[in-house]
Amino acid sequence: MLKVYRPVNAKGRRTMRKIDLRSDTVTKPTDAMIRAMAEAEVGDDVYREDPTVNRLEQIAAERLGKEAALFVTSGTQGNQVAVLTHCVNGDEVIAEAESHIFYYEGGAMSALAGVQTRTLAGVRGALRGEDVEKAIRSTTNIHFPRTKLICLENTHNRAGGAVVTPEQMKSVYDIGQKHGIPVHLDGARLFNAAASLGVDVRELSQYTTTIQICLSKGLSAPVGSILAGSKDFIEEARWWRKKLGGGLRQVGYLAAPGILALTEMTERLVEDHDRAKQLAEGFRKLSLEVEPVETNIVLVKTDSINQTAVDFLKLLAEQGVFAVDFDEYVIRFTTHRHISEDDIQHVLEVVEALITSVSAS
Amino acid sequence: MLKVYRPVNAKGRRTMRKIDLRSDTVTKPTDAMIRAMAEAEVGDDVYREDPTVNRLEQIAAERLGKEAALFVTSGTQGNQVAVLTHCVNGDEVIAEAESHIFYYEGGAMSALAGVQTRTLAGVRGALRGEDVEKAIRSTTNIHFPRTKLICLENTHNRAGGAVVTPEQMKSVYDIGQKHGIPVHLDGARLFNAAASLGVDVRELSQYTTTIQICLSKGLSAPVGSILAGSKDFIEEARWWRKKLGGGLRQVGYLAAPGILALTEMTERLVEDHDRAKQLAEGFRKLSLEVEPVETNIVLVKTDSINQTAVDFLKLLAEQGVFAVDFDEYVIRFTTHRHISEDDIQHVLEVVEALITSVSAS
Amino acid sequence: MLKVYRPVNAKGRRTMRKIDLRSDTVTKPTDAMIRAMAEAEVGDDVYREDPTVNRLEQIAAERLGKEAALFVTSGTQGNQVAVLTHCVNGDEVIAEAESHIFYYEGGAMSALAGVQTRTLAGVRGALRGEDVEKAIRSTTNIHFPRTKLICLENTHNRAGGAVVTPEQMKSVYDIGQKHGIPVHLDGARLFNAAASLGVDVRELSQYTTTIQICLSKGLSAPVGSILAGSKDFIEEARWWRKKLGGGLRQVGYLAAPGILALTEMTERLVEDHDRAKQLAEGFRKLSLEVEPVETNIVLVKTDSINQTAVDFLKLLAEQGVFAVDFDEYVIRFTTHRHISEDDIQHVLEVVEALITSVSAS
Amino acid sequence: MLKVYRPVNAKGRRTMRKIDLRSDTVTKPTDAMIRAMAEAEVGDDVYREDPTVNRLEQIAAERLGKEAALFVTSGTQGNQVAVLTHCVNGDEVIAEAESHIFYYEGGAMSALAGVQTRTLAGVRGALRGEDVEKAIRSTTNIHFPRTKLICLENTHNRAGGAVVTPEQMKSVYDIGQKHGIPVHLDGARLFNAAASLGVDVRELSQYTTTIQICLSKGLSAPVGSILAGSKDFIEEARWWRKKLGGGLRQVGYLAAPGILALTEMTERLVEDHDRAKQLAEGFRKLSLEVEPVETNIVLVKTDSINQTAVDFLKLLAEQGVFAVDFDEYVIRFTTHRHISEDDIQHVLEVVEALITSVSAS
Repeated sequence: MLKVYRPVNAKGRRTMRKIDLRSDTVTKPTDAMIRAMAEAEVGDDVYREDPTVNRLEQIAAERLGKEAALFVTSGTQGNQVAVLTHCVNGDEVIAEAESHIFYYEGGAMSALAGVQTRTLAGVRGALRGEDVEKAIRSTTNIHFPRTKLICLENTHNRAGGAVVTPEQMKSVYDIGQKHGIPVHLDGARLFNAAASLGVDVRELSQYTTTIQICLSKGLSAPVGSILAGSKDFIEEARWWRKKLGGGLRQVGYLAAPGILALTEMTERLVEDHDRAKQLAEGFRKLSLEVEPVETNIVLVKTDSINQTAVDFLKLLAEQGVFAVDFDEYVIRFTTHRHISEDDIQHVLEVVEALITSVSAS
Repeated sequence: MLKVYRPVNAKGRRTMRKIDLRSDTVTKPTDAMIRAMAEAEVGDDVYREDPTVNRLEQIAAERLGKEAALFVTSGTQGNQVAVLTHCVNGDEVIAEAESHIFYYEGGAMSALAGVQTRTLAGVRGALRGEDVEKAIRSTTNIHFPRTKLICLENTHNRAGGAVVTPEQMKSVYDIGQKHGIPVHLDGARLFNAAASLGVDVRELSQYTTTIQICLSKGLSAPVGSILAGSKDFIEEARWWRKKLGGGLRQVGYLAAPGILALTEMTERLVEDHDRAKQLAEGFRKLSLEVEPVETNIVLVKTDSINQTAVDFLKLLAEQGVFAVDFDEYVIRFTTHRHISEDDIQHVLEVVEALITSVSAS
Repeated sequence: MLKVYRPVNAKGRRTMRKIDLRSDTVTKPTDAMIRAMAEAEVGDDVYREDPTVNRLEQIAAERLGKEAALFVTSGTQGNQVAVLTHCVNGDEVIAEAESHIFYYEGGAMSALAGVQTRTLAGVRGALRGEDVEKAIRSTTNIHFPRTKLICLENTHNRAGGAVVTPEQMKSVYDIGQKHGIPVHLDGARLFNAAASLGVDVRELSQYTTTIQICLSKGLSAPVGSILAGSKDFIEEARWWRKKLGGGLRQVGYLAAPGILALTEMTERLVEDHDRAKQLAEGFRKLSLEVEPVETNIVLVKTDSINQTAVDFLKLLAEQGVFAVDFDEYVIRFTTHRHISEDDIQHVLEVVEALITSVSAS
Repeated sequence: MLKVYRPVNAKGRRTMRKIDLRSDTVTKPTDAMIRAMAEAEVGDDVYREDPTVNRLEQIAAERLGKEAALFVTSGTQGNQVAVLTHCVNGDEVIAEAESHIFYYEGGAMSALAGVQTRTLAGVRGALRGEDVEKAIRSTTNIHFPRTKLICLENTHNRAGGAVVTPEQMKSVYDIGQKHGIPVHLDGARLFNAAASLGVDVRELSQYTTTIQICLSKGLSAPVGSILAGSKDFIEEARWWRKKLGGGLRQVGYLAAPGILALTEMTERLVEDHDRAKQLAEGFRKLSLEVEPVETNIVLVKTDSINQTAVDFLKLLAEQGVFAVDFDEYVIRFTTHRHISEDDIQHVLEVVEALITSVSAS
């Protein structure tokens, strides 16, 4: 029986402490972001007259070392617009077998762009240049689609927030260059990678043709991502964004917090990484198997405690701790701005008590 | 020579009065909307935990007389999600020949959903039931696609903001019902239609299976539209919205002004209609040919003054008056919350002076 | 009561004379064609080693005045491969409102190629250059798809086998050239047009970028069509034909009769046209309304005899005469190699008797 | 120096013996097939009035133990029609990572049907039920496409003509049944699998929802494949075949040899398998690494002789021996009706001489 962690006070269970580690997407904007939103100067961005959006796109382009950038409403939209702009129907895209663009975007690459995905298993999420080269199709065999895009993801979500190093990125980018094939990076959490490596994001973005980064997640903006690339590419991308319904009006209200996300919030990601490491170490002390932690994601295996991920998540939820299942016996915990050291400590106590409880039952 | 309307003061041309009649999409939110945004309670809407979004969707569903509603980022996204949810690749959709969904959405119905559009010329934008029935394909002829959706638009933009009456909508809806084919309404400016008819929007929305309405445009929210329909339909629509990158996080910041758009702003649309009529009457006095005005859109022909739309728009722009070309010799003026009676008067003076000027040259 | 035309002999009704005017697609190959088939030298055409196919493609290219040609299994396949090769997803194609490629190919242009069709009403099937020019989209407005192809049809099936003249074709082709937009011709019955005009097919094909012609239909080959165009275009078309499953092996067996279709059978089409005129004149004498007849198709209206097309077709079928409905009150009769003058006479007698019968009832 | 195998006679090199092991698709029809073609009774198959096609479809359905069957022009067309009929845009298909439908069909599944392919590495081409089950997507997570089809291939081409056993097929089929997901079999060489196992094809086809088999290849018909399944499925498949341009006219001329392929030619496949084994043994004696041979395909590695596949193929071609490259250092040899024991012996001699020659150089 596990009672201790059901906090009860005079008013009953509603006071239970809730710790939400499902995703860094749950982060709410800072007060400064809300102020920036309320004070934003806006215009009709379909006419490209929203000064705040224009400013965000300029800042983002510079930050990522690209000629131009485009505000999109989500990482998925940024990725899909990239594919639609790089490819035509009938082409083939190389991507990591469990990359977000393939695994978590509803099959949109094929559904919307009519492209086939050639998936390769990466090493902790990182494609290897030699594997990529082998997967590039001969352009003279009529039985083959044409390879028109290589997709990377950094940090790699399903690999547990794994960092792809500049060297790894370069090895793939060089192959792309050699064969005239662009490289798109899903950099939804690229700033986590940069923070973990202690390098400027440009160290990583230099090995991409186009790149998508999220302003929400750890950077805490409420909504939005950036797609960056050459000027010509971004002009063309506007057409596809429009078709997807991503051409918006006074969207400076979202761009304003986005600017703060880029300019004020990237430094703080190391704190999330520290919390994740703290959590992982705690789990290991409880004899749980944990994937290596490089950023703000912790993957824990639950088979050793004879619990499926879904079952154990239910027990956690009853104690006010929330995470998500990543596989039948894998749970993902994600740290973010709203998670304190004390929260981590509390989670570890909850987990310890639960393990004791389930092994006793 | 036309000098009068180039206002010059001590500081130069920057003081020229600018009157923007290009579209009602240029409207900025009210102060109350901005306050609502800043104070909005938000959550992660991908987890369906944003209370403000949930409230907007509930209010919108009720207002439109549907079971459920979904926030989307634009009218285009609402329309395209509707098509993707109603149809599969290989189906055919019936739509008016110059309807927004066919004319102005980048061919997205075919590009994204793989459906063919059978266009029919409407009467001032309104499809006739008998024409629709004739266009519905036999389901036994293997040479034919299957007709799976009928699209209406109210008010009809390219027909000059023309109102489609409940009777006209019913005649098409009845044909749809008879043949088991749903009717989707692009109601980007449905509240203008209702205001013009002096009826509740439900008088119109009752003759639809699904419906999209814009929160921006005349209703002045900064960004966003609503897609409404049955509960099952909206559940399914969520999957396609996600693929388009329209599944957002703390989007309550956009939903908050959207709630005010629906609850506070629909009554005021009659003012825009009055301004439009005032403008049209003024144009007619200047012997310009004007389409009948029913709502907030005024289509003026420029052939009588030997000016292409584009050329005359340039002259207008030099005087600080902005509109858009709708055809080689047709200009569209759209009234909205930022346009006063005095602005209309000013525009008429500018046009009169320009006509004198161009006929003298 | 109508008995006369139910021929009965000792063996019963099986001897009823059957006259099949449903389509010229029902024509069977000539004896020479069957011999050519049996004696054809073949190889694996996916390796491009079928000498008979190679010869057919060369003959066809020369005959049509194009650099190269490709055997495809049907007119639909030829048209769709053309669209897939000319366009990418998101593009727009201009076509006549009742052209085969739009009306009778299952929505394949949108389903397979992801292109939107902008349909224009033609004059007896012929698009007018000025209408086409007006329909070409501005390339700078992000709301628009890009116009990438203009489709013509000659003769035009639903316009009743109407011939599009070289002048009409030129007017559209010139607009295409002016805007850099290719023109594809669905010439399923192009040799009928040439025969009717008394010109070489090149008089017509010169005003096309690419062209599809059928070897079956009036030319009597059992299966197959030709897609012709520039060498580069045809090379690219091979890739799309393969994806559609049209890359075949020892297909010289179909190419052999195809060669005879092109070299031996085009002259005889005037006979079919004579029969069609004979039929039309007979119908007119029976006071039936008939569309102008230019080739081998006769469209007859059935409203004057208070019969729907489907109902009257049933009566005809009972008398051994077969045709198809083209509209609620329109029947199409198509003449071909198996239809003699005597057959026409017989059909007219049947129709006369039926009219008497139905008006008496 | 290698001279021996360049046969020279009085008339020069043209007499060199040519042995074509590139594919069993190069087989030409038997004399009986050509006779059957010449004598075939035909009709317009779009009207479903070709008696020979109807007979072939009935025979094929019975042979495969399915309700109905459809003639298609190629294996690719059969596979793609199956995918288009089973799935809608946005769905996901599970297939083996090097299966023909994914690897060699130009990305058509995604290009035409808009479905994403989830590829799994098989064991000698055979998917494992447990892997398939793990890859089936949860139907409640909005980030996922829906798994709507599982594709198998038997024999598996790129696995070297490997046979998938009834047990292996059953394990996947059972998973499909459990989750309500149909199984489509690419059985282009299914009769080779049956011959190798010494079982009736129904032992294998019973574990499929739909199935495609080739009439050409080892069975020697010039052109064509069969798609078989339930009556409803095949009716629906006709619509998609039409859109791909596979609805043909007097196609009985191809169906007639197809009937003989099914009724007369399946027994003889064991001869091809014997030849393949003979070839493999010969190669092994020459110290070449050869994949296990189960049917008519032999995969040989060329790295041990320091030759890329392409380079060694050139040397072979100079000696009149033809095969294809399957990987940088892998050559595929395929035996078929035109390959005799003596041919195999000759090939082995050529290879031996070449190996001596290249190792000497």
